[in-house]
Amino acid sequence: MVHNGHMSAVPSASNALTIRLSAPARATAISELTAAVEAAGGLTSALDISESTADNMTIDLTVAGRSVGHNERIVAAINEVEGVEIGKISDRTFLAHLGGKITIEPKQPIRNRDDLSLIYTPGVARVCQAIADNPEDARRLTIKRNTVAVVTDGTAVLGLGNIGPLAAMPVMEGKAALFKRFADVDAFPICLDAGGVEDIVAHVKAIAPTFAGINLEDISAPRCFEIERRLREELDIPVFHDDQHGTAIVAVAALTNALRVVEKDLAEVRIVLSGAGAAGTAIMRLLHKAGARNVVVSDINGILHPEREDIRDGGDEQLRWIAENTNPEAVRGSLKEAVRGADVFIGVSAGNILTGEDVATMNEDAIVFAMANPTPEVDPNEAAQHATVVATGRSDFANQINNVLVFPGVFRGLLDARSEAVTEDVMLAAAHALADVVTPDELNPTYIIPSVFHKDVSKVVARAVVEAVREDEEAVSEPRTEAIALMDIPAKRPSGSKRVDA
Amino acid sequence: MVHNGHMSAVPSASNALTIRLSAPARATAISELTAAVEAAGGLTSALDISESTADNMTIDLTVAGRSVGHNERIVAAINEVEGVEIGKISDRTFLAHLGGKITIEPKQPIRNRDDLSLIYTPGVARVCQAIADNPEDARRLTIKRNTVAVVTDGTAVLGLGNIGPLAAMPVMEGKAALFKRFADVDAFPICLDAGGVEDIVAHVKAIAPTFAGINLEDISAPRCFEIERRLREELDIPVFHDDQHGTAIVAVAALTNALRVVEKDLAEVRIVLSGAGAAGTAIMRLLHKAGARNVVVSDINGILHPEREDIRDGGDEQLRWIAENTNPEAVRGSLKEAVRGADVFIGVSAGNILTGEDVATMNEDAIVFAMANPTPEVDPNEAAQHATVVATGRSDFANQINNVLVFPGVFRGLLDARSEAVTEDVMLAAAHALADVVTPDELNPTYIIPSVFHKDVSKVVARAVVEAVREDEEAVSEPRTEAIALMDIPAKRPSGSKRVDA
Repeated sequence: MVHNGHMSAVPSASNALTIRLSAPARATAISELTAAVEAAGGLTSALDISESTADNMTIDLTVAGRSVGHNERIVAAINEVEGVEIGKISDRTFLAHLGGKITIEPKQPIRNRDDLSLIYTPGVARVCQAIADNPEDARRLTIKRNTVAVVTDGTAVLGLGNIGPLAAMPVMEGKAALFKRFADVDAFPICLDAGGVEDIVAHVKAIAPTFAGINLEDISAPRCFEIERRLREELDIPVFHDDQHGTAIVAVAALTNALRVVEKDLAEVRIVLSGAGAAGTAIMRLLHKAGARNVVVSDINGILHPEREDIRDGGDEQLRWIAENTNPEAVRGSLKEAVRGADVFIGVSAGNILTGEDVATMNEDAIVFAMANPTPEVDPNEAAQHATVVATGRSDFANQINNVLVFPGVFRGLLDARSEAVTEDVMLAAAHALADVVTPDELNPTYIIPSVFHKDVSKVVARAVVEAVREDEEAVSEPRTEAIALMDIPAKRPSGSKRVDA
Repeated sequence: MVHNGHMSAVPSASNALTIRLSAPARATAISELTAAVEAAGGLTSALDISESTADNMTIDLTVAGRSVGHNERIVAAINEVEGVEIGKISDRTFLAHLGGKITIEPKQPIRNRDDLSLIYTPGVARVCQAIADNPEDARRLTIKRNTVAVVTDGTAVLGLGNIGPLAAMPVMEGKAALFKRFADVDAFPICLDAGGVEDIVAHVKAIAPTFAGINLEDISAPRCFEIERRLREELDIPVFHDDQHGTAIVAVAALTNALRVVEKDLAEVRIVLSGAGAAGTAIMRLLHKAGARNVVVSDINGILHPEREDIRDGGDEQLRWIAENTNPEAVRGSLKEAVRGADVFIGVSAGNILTGEDVATMNEDAIVFAMANPTPEVDPNEAAQHATVVATGRSDFANQINNVLVFPGVFRGLLDARSEAVTEDVMLAAAHALADVVTPDELNPTYIIPSVFHKDVSKVVARAVVEAVREDEEAVSEPRTEAIALMDIPAKRPSGSKRVDA
């Protein structure tokens, strides 16, 4: 399954090219083109004749391959069709990124001086004064009502690692686009050219007035833990590292349903978690909060336990905490030894570290979440021959465990509840609400998590978050969406008395 | 002319209220309402009957007064109309601000997995890698192509002073809305909770990757000079403090046309400038660049000259620079003495510091720009009795000198030119282009500057900026808006040879 770069099991739209070519005007030309693409293993998704003369046709052909290398072979195959001249090749993904993926728009038209005087001087001065007099009003009268910062320093971007803030922009823009699309949350990318923990904390605190929430993204572990902890202490708006908690929430939601499918109890099952970074740590904590009592964590050095040399002697607080709070049966050794007899495997680590045979050593009715991206820890098809429920992070297999199911709805709820923080209670409530979107009638081994396009997901998650925040804080006021009464209504003078002069 | 708070000479839409009231169903009720408003000196701009029964009508009445205090009297007058019960009073300006004035939208629909795979994982990873390989591509593939940060620390907001970053938000949002409306520039408000110059510089540098330009706004003098200078040194994107340079550009544009009206030469005229803060300093510098040779600057302590005690002994570098580079005739004394015999008065200081009689002591064909906000340095009607050309910053007099004529087009040009800086040459080119929007046929003493809604202004200013940047830098490439060729087109094999296998 491992090809170069970003491969798919099947041709993917993300690798689509649009090729403008000219072909001779012979009857078989078009079928020769599509046959060439098919023989090369590609998909033709569109073919448009944009121009035609007596001798030639100009054709826009959209094809998709499995990878960049595969695309090159497809283009070569097209080129070999007799009489074809390739003009321009456009990559659909790059086309979709030209000039960025989000735009900032005024909410109202600005047609004349009247409009200008409402949204700018002099009208705006009164609004500024109102907020100066009562800072709480910022949540009503500015975009702070609905806006989240998507903050990164570019040190842990997707599978690419430390590519820096500039190269991280497309991911952050995409995140912002998804926030609006799935939960009507305004989100803006903040890509920090920053140094260490202190700098990042200082910069986020400085920009905080504009925002009602901070979504940390793609910040490397273990710095991300300290950064989140410090910001949570020092800000009065919620701070949520999606790579940690978004992943944890969706994993716990999927596990909740998978356990319903195999009729096992979270408190009883033995769970093996591969990966002790940002996602793994957060999954482990939320599992613990949810009632899991037998979790074994494995990382690149094998199973975590307090006596392991690097943990005993090293300074990594997070690793030590995990080692001391997991593995009650004191299992030792490698990942493969850990999964033997386990009920659940959750992987947020690296690709191809387990085989189908390893899955075969698990308990009956095994659950396998192989979430490493882009290559899962074990081939899902092989795993499915031995486990009852299999899930990955990929869109080309069943049961896609994807943070997009979580972060829009969670922030929608945090914003609506005017929350000042986000707690594990809130996260667990979100996880359970997400799981319950799948009804008992719908639940089966290949449908343990809703599709990201399921129309209820964000609403359901948001509502659960609002309720959980209210239980937590008991201090939330209803959003005031109606017109504001700004002055006392004067007492009427007795009937018949004269009007007041101007 | 001075009332409480934000007064207008006439009722203004920015002070509009919508009053929901119930009135008895008698024939004269409506005319009694409008008469009451009129007698109180207000304007009725809308009257809608939203409900009606045999005995009563529910009426939504929109009225506008000159000020908040005036509005209260108007409401009281309405309340006195027999049988009227006031329900709810909504302020149109506050209504326009509910939830903020801008929104962030995805540029493309996200309808299905294909769309998701283009704008998010896995497609987005290839775009990140491309930028990591070639950082220049960020200007093509992200919102950096078109996005400006509107940055403030809230220390000098409108006439309200140091109200802080949260209360400054409505102004910054308004600015962003205007950027988009007038020049299709994406702009996002960044309100910094920051300390001194060092902190602000550090924070702006940290957030710079997302942006192709920085618009500094409402930052108090003299800190603003140091902040702008440092950021210009340390960033490779243009940094432009609009309170300084936007004001300077529009003032020079207006003066260019005013001098055409009175047929005087900039190099010959004696100009008195009231105000040595951000705007005054920048106007003075741009006038000097434009060729003015006889400028006298006055501040709260009178005319600036190098021997003035606070300048000679104080540490304010900006003031000393002004004192040493102006006032060639060594004029001493107060503002009133300075304007005697002067050709031009430009005020960016405080209200009501000159009278019509002072204007009468100016030279023939005097030009008076009384730009203090909200109260001009001299009553424009009084000034117009003695000067030939009078302008203010207000929308309710002729010749409104307004930065909105400048900052959208300037940044449009800077973005299109991929500029790394903004120089005085560029600013002067913008000023001259703005002046030339007014054709010789249109030019007269009450039309020296275009309306902010003139459809050509931003385009003309942007084009002039692009040309000036190119002259400055000679290093700008044409924006690439067409599809990107990403791979070499393979050489064709000779006709008749077999197709390549997949």
